[in-house]
Amino acid sequence: MGTKHLDQIKQEAFEINIAIVREKLVVLTWGNASTIDRSNGIFAIKPSGVPYSNLKWQDMVLVDLEGKVVDSSLKPSSDTQTHLEIYKGFELVGGIVHTHSPWATIWAQACQSIPVIGTTHSDHFFGEIPCLPYLTQDKVESDYETETGIQIVKFFNSNQLDPIHMPGCLLSGHASFSWGQTSKKAFENSVALEACAHMAYHSISLNNNIKFPDFILSKHFLRKHGDKAYYGQIKSK
Amino acid sequence: MGTKHLDQIKQEAFEINIAIVREKLVVLTWGNASTIDRSNGIFAIKPSGVPYSNLKWQDMVLVDLEGKVVDSSLKPSSDTQTHLEIYKGFELVGGIVHTHSPWATIWAQACQSIPVIGTTHSDHFFGEIPCLPYLTQDKVESDYETETGIQIVKFFNSNQLDPIHMPGCLLSGHASFSWGQTSKKAFENSVALEACAHMAYHSISLNNNIKFPDFILSKHFLRKHGDKAYYGQIKSK
Amino acid sequence: MGTKHLDQIKQEAFEINIAIVREKLVVLTWGNASTIDRSNGIFAIKPSGVPYSNLKWQDMVLVDLEGKVVDSSLKPSSDTQTHLEIYKGFELVGGIVHTHSPWATIWAQACQSIPVIGTTHSDHFFGEIPCLPYLTQDKVESDYETETGIQIVKFFNSNQLDPIHMPGCLLSGHASFSWGQTSKKAFENSVALEACAHMAYHSISLNNNIKFPDFILSKHFLRKHGDKAYYGQIKSK
Amino acid sequence: MGTKHLDQIKQEAFEINIAIVREKLVVLTWGNASTIDRSNGIFAIKPSGVPYSNLKWQDMVLVDLEGKVVDSSLKPSSDTQTHLEIYKGFELVGGIVHTHSPWATIWAQACQSIPVIGTTHSDHFFGEIPCLPYLTQDKVESDYETETGIQIVKFFNSNQLDPIHMPGCLLSGHASFSWGQTSKKAFENSVALEACAHMAYHSISLNNNIKFPDFILSKHFLRKHGDKAYYGQIKSK
Repeated sequence: MGTKHLDQIKQEAFEINIAIVREKLVVLTWGNASTIDRSNGIFAIKPSGVPYSNLKWQDMVLVDLEGKVVDSSLKPSSDTQTHLEIYKGFELVGGIVHTHSPWATIWAQACQSIPVIGTTHSDHFFGEIPCLPYLTQDKVESDYETETGIQIVKFFNSNQLDPIHMPGCLLSGHASFSWGQTSKKAFENSVALEACAHMAYHSISLNNNIKFPDFILSKHFLRKHGDKAYYGQIKSK
Repeated sequence: MGTKHLDQIKQEAFEINIAIVREKLVVLTWGNASTIDRSNGIFAIKPSGVPYSNLKWQDMVLVDLEGKVVDSSLKPSSDTQTHLEIYKGFELVGGIVHTHSPWATIWAQACQSIPVIGTTHSDHFFGEIPCLPYLTQDKVESDYETETGIQIVKFFNSNQLDPIHMPGCLLSGHASFSWGQTSKKAFENSVALEACAHMAYHSISLNNNIKFPDFILSKHFLRKHGDKAYYGQIKSK
Repeated sequence: MGTKHLDQIKQEAFEINIAIVREKLVVLTWGNASTIDRSNGIFAIKPSGVPYSNLKWQDMVLVDLEGKVVDSSLKPSSDTQTHLEIYKGFELVGGIVHTHSPWATIWAQACQSIPVIGTTHSDHFFGEIPCLPYLTQDKVESDYETETGIQIVKFFNSNQLDPIHMPGCLLSGHASFSWGQTSKKAFENSVALEACAHMAYHSISLNNNIKFPDFILSKHFLRKHGDKAYYGQIKSK
Repeated sequence: MGTKHLDQIKQEAFEINIAIVREKLVVLTWGNASTIDRSNGIFAIKPSGVPYSNLKWQDMVLVDLEGKVVDSSLKPSSDTQTHLEIYKGFELVGGIVHTHSPWATIWAQACQSIPVIGTTHSDHFFGEIPCLPYLTQDKVESDYETETGIQIVKFFNSNQLDPIHMPGCLLSGHASFSWGQTSKKAFENSVALEACAHMAYHSISLNNNIKFPDFILSKHFLRKHGDKAYYGQIKSK
């Protein structure tokens, strides 16, 4: 097992965990980010309940895809099993961010999906950002965090949502998960999710009959993603 | 009387008084925090009306459970009697935070309790955060701050609310008090109260018929508190 | 004429002009503060349209109560005539703050007075904060800034409002003026006005039938002001 | 071609690109600013998708009025064609700012123009800030960014709007463009647009029947602009 790769994902996971605090997506310890090394099937995640001010990159906990801690004396985030299920279910995902960022959480608590009504949203999410229903009582009381991850993967599969085209979702009564092909993309998607949640809340209050055209959604998403992307300095794959 | 313990609670009280400013829970001098040393029955509290920018830990005022200043040339916070009544009524409380943080105050001014509609709330408050009614005129005009504390303790007792399970409340037309087994917990609860007040305000505006399941409330509160807690690095007692 | 006193009011005016930016009450150059030396009848005010980042205390412009610049090569704020009228009309006022702070301006644009619904408001303003009507066309087109100040003084006189008990007001379609016996008090009142405007907006949206008792208003205002004040380290006069 | 002038517009464009981030008008890379040297017909604009934290003034891309990059190894902003059309259509414009600042975008997503209801707005925009309709499908799918610029210029021409009197607009479902005779003015107008969007949203929610008088609009706009301006230290041209 390459130590070098593992140190690198610890550092990447650490940077994203710090970045979500700096961007005010996280209050107290309400959030965690992880990065996976697909060559080893190992991901690095924030330890549970450690204050951000004391966090070092070496504190990131390495976990394999069977959920076993492979390197750390610290317990991994209590949401580790949810990250695990997302990594298992969505093979192209390289990083995951979970936060209780206020505006995404406001929509999640209202049990409402975020409609696509603008180009900011379209640049990152190819359609409405879905809000999944409350988990059932037996799932909450048995293996809550695992069931949360399973719910996300099942929902995307049964609704034929591509997790790279729709890199995030809301969980009713809870908060949001975002992801991406890299942890940097996961981070950017979590920032975009929060900004779009904030703006959509207020736009629909001004106008409850917004008819955002599909062709603008397609134009913006595909300007940044896929074969014909022309945004940024380097062609995306 | 151990000077060491008393210096320590002065330092703890100071840190929390600074932390509530840093977290933007306090504007001007609208807030105060205290820490109690239960072995001595003495608590340290912010002096009255001193600007935060000049505050030193040595300025914290020591007060005993009969309300007498035991060490300071400064007057304690004008809300000292309220802290005193809470410490007398709630024996497990180790720290108290009072602020006019905007969103908690918005609910208090509206005379409305904050409903539990999400897991952020559930992680800290085991149910709706109650808003107590306006004090009556005779109580306001006689011994206002003492009566405020008595009202809180009586309300919790008569409604069979456990102050450790419900570590805070709103006061109609006024603001909020939060507390905890330590002042650090009291601080965290004041941060959580503000965040939940902000999010609940907007969620109920999106959806006025939210049905947050009790079993998620129980799951989240008990995941962090009590015998079966599994959040964080160290088992809570 | 004492140079020492005049340097001192320049420094005080400078500090308040900086403080209102630091507290985010001012965007771009939309605000100005002044301090008067009543012994000389001279006040120091911000120069017009100078960016805050370049401002030095020496740049403050000295103006006498006839509106003449007595010391500066810079033009005083375009709102100088309004400050002048307030100083002439309200003899106990020692400092004035004008800002377009967002929430006070939101109420002013809505042409609505800010109702008193909580103790934060009661601690600073002894009643509803009045919103004065639009100035008439002839007054706007003749001597706009002077007429604005005259309107404020007349409104307070004809409504028997004590400017020390009600240290601020809104101007329909425009913004707010706050004042106090010192410029530090004027600053604190401008901060309180903004915070109360923000909170009242949202509280009345949660509950449009708030009945805040007069006896709490009186208790809180008089706890901080007048002969029986007991807040802070030093008895107020 | 004067290198000195071109370095200067690179530096000016850089400063405005940094300023819009500092003022929180830009999240992630959602924004770009440019400055034109009318003597050369060349403008400097932010490169595409480069994070603000790494940006140097030397990275600004020089583009001529035929849309050709004249100096840089970096690709210019994906919105370059829109800037180009605005410079071609509005000959007095010296700088342009495009951002997805939240409150301007909230109105744009709601497809609503921002009404003039106060003096803050009147100081910068001589009337309602127009929201242009969605572009048609053929224009979005052919040459989107060019068509966006053409739409803006045509709208202003056909509605007889003077771009110096109305230095900005909203684009339905998208965001805002602001401009000015200099890039500093363009920046100030983008700050004013955001502040006015925020305040108007809330004022009309408090009062849906605001009747802001035209004579106050005229007074405030003309106090800062045109021959009779008397705001600031130097007469504007």
